[in-house]
Amino acid sequence: MRVELMRNILEDNTTAAHKNTKQYEDNGVLALDLLGSPGSGKTSVLERVISHLSPTGLRIKVIEGDVASANDAERIEAAGAEAFQINTGGACHLHAGMVSRAMKTLRMNEIDILLIENVGNLVCPTAFPLGAHARVVVASVPEGDDKPEKYPEAFRQGGVIILNKMDLLQHMDFDVDRFWQRVRELAPAAECFEISCTTGAGIHELCEWIQMMRRQVRDG
Amino acid sequence: MRVELMRNILEDNTTAAHKNTKQYEDNGVLALDLLGSPGSGKTSVLERVISHLSPTGLRIKVIEGDVASANDAERIEAAGAEAFQINTGGACHLHAGMVSRAMKTLRMNEIDILLIENVGNLVCPTAFPLGAHARVVVASVPEGDDKPEKYPEAFRQGGVIILNKMDLLQHMDFDVDRFWQRVRELAPAAECFEISCTTGAGIHELCEWIQMMRRQVRDG
Repeated sequence: MRVELMRNILEDNTTAAHKNTKQYEDNGVLALDLLGSPGSGKTSVLERVISHLSPTGLRIKVIEGDVASANDAERIEAAGAEAFQINTGGACHLHAGMVSRAMKTLRMNEIDILLIENVGNLVCPTAFPLGAHARVVVASVPEGDDKPEKYPEAFRQGGVIILNKMDLLQHMDFDVDRFWQRVRELAPAAECFEISCTTGAGIHELCEWIQMMRRQVRDG
Repeated sequence: MRVELMRNILEDNTTAAHKNTKQYEDNGVLALDLLGSPGSGKTSVLERVISHLSPTGLRIKVIEGDVASANDAERIEAAGAEAFQINTGGACHLHAGMVSRAMKTLRMNEIDILLIENVGNLVCPTAFPLGAHARVVVASVPEGDDKPEKYPEAFRQGGVIILNKMDLLQHMDFDVDRFWQRVRELAPAAECFEISCTTGAGIHELCEWIQMMRRQVRDG
């Protein structure tokens, strides 16, 4: 019975995720969802991307998923993008239905890029695809170079994998080659970026990739 | 029906946790379970504690919980303590029954202190008490000073709260007073430590507290 119940939950999620994907396609919206540990810097990445891309005229909106607090939505709005805060009230991940409801408020026909930040968690969100074009996994140098081995499913799902907080590398025992080697074993086709949200290093390259993806989605 | 099923799972966990507690009491074992984000430094804390306390003659063993890999158990054994690695195979938390099974292998009558490291996750483990004497929440400076607000239940459950990676404070925008103020609102009675597993700062104080707790447990 437990198996049956879990199957129902996952099937409901898949159905909702497919509906989300269709809405993105119908509106020419590029949707990316961000996954990472608490404190890996997901919100900081969004702040940097919004600041970098807003002057280009691209219309960006954000869905923020958190167990509690509206801290992240406030940070996003301060960076200049409309944000919808989902508080899961204890739940450890977003599911696709939560995203569908937030999308109604955010009006998909007024958006070029939708960025979805999941609850800080490298495990549970992997079971719940949200229907976006790619999962963006945000790892960070202080977490250690062994995270791909310890949380393989998250990295396996990464269409984009970002190594953040590169400015701290000089203070840490972190083997960059080891990290990327394990990433490539899990996600050989992933786009990979090394960035620092503190210094801004690598943000330009990340944003170029996002713009290219956005053009592909728009042009079908 | 979903509510009923979840209630059964939680009741099973509570029953197993009570049995674990009884075993600790019967054997005079101090049991602590560590909770924290991926990369907060839980394993490094254990390595430091083992190195610091082993020369005192205290017999320490460790249960390591991970989604995948035996990296952490190997690190613990290199530090000089017997370790039992649980791989949850995708599951996002330990439950008390997993700990019970590991305890059989580790022989409780040959232990003074049992240290249990949960899966790196600030959300899901909070629903599953393991029966230990205290939860030790390991946060770290690079994760940011807002983690108590965003993951309140984890901090609320902390009998001990450790702020790790204090050596990185000079490189980060982290408000130590803000962090502890939020912690105290959530867990006013928690024991609090600032440490660095890189420099060793604060490890002596943490170990003194562990030794005091161990004496209390032994003397009933």
